[in-house]
Amino acid sequence: MKKLTMFDSTLRDGMQSEGIAFSVEDKLNIAHALDELGIGFIEAGNPGSNPKDLEFFRRIKQNPLKNAMLCAFGSTRRKGIQAADDANVVSLLEADTLAVSIFGKCWDLHVERVINTTLDENLAMIEDTVAYMKQNGKYVVFDAEHFFDGYFHNPEYAIKALDAAAKGGADVICLCDTNGGAYPTDIYTITKQAAERFSNAEIGIHCHEDTGMGVAQSMFAVDAGATHVQGTYVGYGERCGNANLSTLIGNLQLKRGYLCIPKENLPLLTSTARRIADISNIWLPSAMPYVGKSAFAHKGGMHIDGVKKVRESFEHIPPSSVGNERRYLMSEVGGKATLLKKIQRVDVGVDAKSPVVAALVDELKQREFEGYQYEAAEQSFELLIRRMLNKYKPFYKLDYFKIIGEQPLNGQEYPSSAIVKVHVGEESRITGAEGDGPVHALDLALRSALEQFYPVLSEMRLTDYKVRVLESSATTAAKVRVLIDSTDGANTWSTVGVSTDIIEASFMALSDSIEYKLTMEEQKAARH
Amino acid sequence: MKKLTMFDSTLRDGMQSEGIAFSVEDKLNIAHALDELGIGFIEAGNPGSNPKDLEFFRRIKQNPLKNAMLCAFGSTRRKGIQAADDANVVSLLEADTLAVSIFGKCWDLHVERVINTTLDENLAMIEDTVAYMKQNGKYVVFDAEHFFDGYFHNPEYAIKALDAAAKGGADVICLCDTNGGAYPTDIYTITKQAAERFSNAEIGIHCHEDTGMGVAQSMFAVDAGATHVQGTYVGYGERCGNANLSTLIGNLQLKRGYLCIPKENLPLLTSTARRIADISNIWLPSAMPYVGKSAFAHKGGMHIDGVKKVRESFEHIPPSSVGNERRYLMSEVGGKATLLKKIQRVDVGVDAKSPVVAALVDELKQREFEGYQYEAAEQSFELLIRRMLNKYKPFYKLDYFKIIGEQPLNGQEYPSSAIVKVHVGEESRITGAEGDGPVHALDLALRSALEQFYPVLSEMRLTDYKVRVLESSATTAAKVRVLIDSTDGANTWSTVGVSTDIIEASFMALSDSIEYKLTMEEQKAARH
Repeated sequence: MKKLTMFDSTLRDGMQSEGIAFSVEDKLNIAHALDELGIGFIEAGNPGSNPKDLEFFRRIKQNPLKNAMLCAFGSTRRKGIQAADDANVVSLLEADTLAVSIFGKCWDLHVERVINTTLDENLAMIEDTVAYMKQNGKYVVFDAEHFFDGYFHNPEYAIKALDAAAKGGADVICLCDTNGGAYPTDIYTITKQAAERFSNAEIGIHCHEDTGMGVAQSMFAVDAGATHVQGTYVGYGERCGNANLSTLIGNLQLKRGYLCIPKENLPLLTSTARRIADISNIWLPSAMPYVGKSAFAHKGGMHIDGVKKVRESFEHIPPSSVGNERRYLMSEVGGKATLLKKIQRVDVGVDAKSPVVAALVDELKQREFEGYQYEAAEQSFELLIRRMLNKYKPFYKLDYFKIIGEQPLNGQEYPSSAIVKVHVGEESRITGAEGDGPVHALDLALRSALEQFYPVLSEMRLTDYKVRVLESSATTAAKVRVLIDSTDGANTWSTVGVSTDIIEASFMALSDSIEYKLTMEEQKAARH
Repeated sequence: MKKLTMFDSTLRDGMQSEGIAFSVEDKLNIAHALDELGIGFIEAGNPGSNPKDLEFFRRIKQNPLKNAMLCAFGSTRRKGIQAADDANVVSLLEADTLAVSIFGKCWDLHVERVINTTLDENLAMIEDTVAYMKQNGKYVVFDAEHFFDGYFHNPEYAIKALDAAAKGGADVICLCDTNGGAYPTDIYTITKQAAERFSNAEIGIHCHEDTGMGVAQSMFAVDAGATHVQGTYVGYGERCGNANLSTLIGNLQLKRGYLCIPKENLPLLTSTARRIADISNIWLPSAMPYVGKSAFAHKGGMHIDGVKKVRESFEHIPPSSVGNERRYLMSEVGGKATLLKKIQRVDVGVDAKSPVVAALVDELKQREFEGYQYEAAEQSFELLIRRMLNKYKPFYKLDYFKIIGEQPLNGQEYPSSAIVKVHVGEESRITGAEGDGPVHALDLALRSALEQFYPVLSEMRLTDYKVRVLESSATTAAKVRVLIDSTDGANTWSTVGVSTDIIEASFMALSDSIEYKLTMEEQKAARH
């Protein structure tokens, strides 16, 4: 297998994404996630323009990367001075990384109208800075900024910029489609020419998604001879984002036979994406190729039928090869077969003709109409099945809850308090709790009441709490859907509540989460 | 300009998307949005598999489309019967559309192992069904399902399936990459061959995003001679979604010189995307090419500097050409220049050296650290600037609010009530309100108090209310960020609040929204 170098810029170009704000801690965690996956290079910051980045480079030395080469990013020296006298160039060395990436201008328009210097001085800036970094023992990636746009306007000058980097001794000459507008076939032709011209340097490619073709552009550059592929792992980046490295690894390794990461790590593709999205506190688009939650989700009845008969009928790769999973979605277009399969997990005796199947289809339609969505709350759906099959006795009964919230606090510690009264069998408990908000207070009061009956509940904790407003036009009076993810360390489960009252919707999801945990415990006990 | 036909399947293939559940009303609204944009064909449902779709076809006749041709979707007849005897085929005619799309199997594996018939019978099923639709006066699009995968396994048979559709009289032969795994250059070669073979039918292309290359695949098919392009307007679809038609229109019309929609409608590209996402109640990915909120958002200081000097330095097209806009984002990597520009909109006298600029940079960093994000709440940021410049007197003072919530309702109409006390100047008001939840009750009570002082507030309404949990591990005790969008018909604005108490965070965003409206009114009055 021919080896390619994966170069991730989540921590540098990804930081340019709207909505992204990494702490140093976040950056350390992401670097380690990428390192464990086997990404070759991690570009982690621009010490010249963002002093906070130096803190990252200092801290990562306490817990160094195992495989990846760390790279600091900076610009060519400023015009008219020596590289050694440029504060940004010097701060790049302070990052003390084995590799540096230096970006320089390749488009005459940028040289003359953005950085306002002469075409010759710009070439000297590139060569000097690369050479200075080589003298300081660095592995140097030259990022040929706007190379393709430059080439379209003035091919001779764009190539001269690459020549300058090569003369300076660059290890990698990376061709950047900075504005994201180049056509894949043009990228192929031009990259091929560059690959033929520079035999002493690796050719790299750096694309963006402004025309929705950043992945294809990168693939075509590899077809043309590029061996160093830049991107960001889940596609973060300025404007429409950078070429998505998780997609590229899937495509290049599974479809084109290149070695991008160690073969045994391919099943980490999905969990790494989710881990990075989690750290970034950004929802991972469910439709993301290979790693998205929906990437192998089947909803249409005919598709579900097809996949069940022959896996490859509606799947371009086996989901497990990238650590993802096939899912059959619950919905009115999903077909009875999927529903039946879920019912049979609760009661194997139910067949397609049982009246309960039709009743559940109707119930599902009604609830989807009301705003429930069981695709993301499979355990609430399982509880619904159990209730309809009469395979379920509730573990407790809520008598009432009351919550009070106020601002300003007037000396109270918390703004909210809650009272909950529950019955378990003949016994009842009334508990009160204070919390950081009404849902928090209610959560604490309910658990404190129920843990007295069910100590096992102390094992579980909520891991995510999401609120979705269903009819934006009704705003604060709108129906809201609350999704709660829970875990007890061994299992994770998701539950849902819908109401115009956010407190009630939260309570429903919370209650389902507790009931599901107790159901699992009961089944575990029954098996022993 | 060479004309291409755009064929949108949001209402059919888009329905297969995880998380999508359109009501008939939603479907009517989306069809009209696409029609107004100038999309040629709207595929609106599968009456055979989803009876609810017939309701759509009945209802749209009351308010017919102005330009687009409506299309109903269905399968070839079942094996062993006449087309006229097949209930699904008959229900397709009942939709009473000018056009129909018929999908048929082109991959021998599907014929033999999924629908379990002979290769010859499948060809007859294709030809018969297409011919039957032609006899009934329909414009027929033949969707050659799994054509590319079929071609890779058995090219001769895949071509025979197309021949059968052509013999039946299909107007369009649409080549589908149903599993989304075909490589763009293969699509080019194979499409070219089909375009040369069928001179009496248009060639279409239908791609998916499973390898992140659906847009590029479609572009390559057009390069090879396809003139009918299927997709979904914002990319909804099974698994990773369908080729995104808004991206394709941007690419084809602005980059390759084809006419996809009337030239004068191109600036509707962005608003149509947002309208469809709104109707679908799905967040439009901000990084979506051309139409996303971030598509022309600049965050890095060097990028912002470049764009200000020369627009095309970091933009592949002018954002206004597709009705989008350039944005300079507020953030610590954004640079002082952007901040200064925002400050100068409030006070032109402030220059880069004013101490208030440095103070605001510090304040911004501190607030981003606390979880504020002003990128999506520019008006809260403007209020922050006004406060720091002492250019702001609050329009009211909150003395306190208290909220009470309870379940079950015990005869009350609403589960929540709120008491609010405010001061305006020397006067105070205490109001109470009931609501569908604590935030709703608080919203009503606050407005009812303030409208007595500021009747103009009756003009404004909230249009969106979003809640984001900031530290998922803290769940119900976590800090939440509330974003509120408001409008008074003429303007829209966005405000933010952050707190561990969802009620307080909502109150902050609500209060900023009201204060912003009153600030605008004050400025309007000052101008007259």
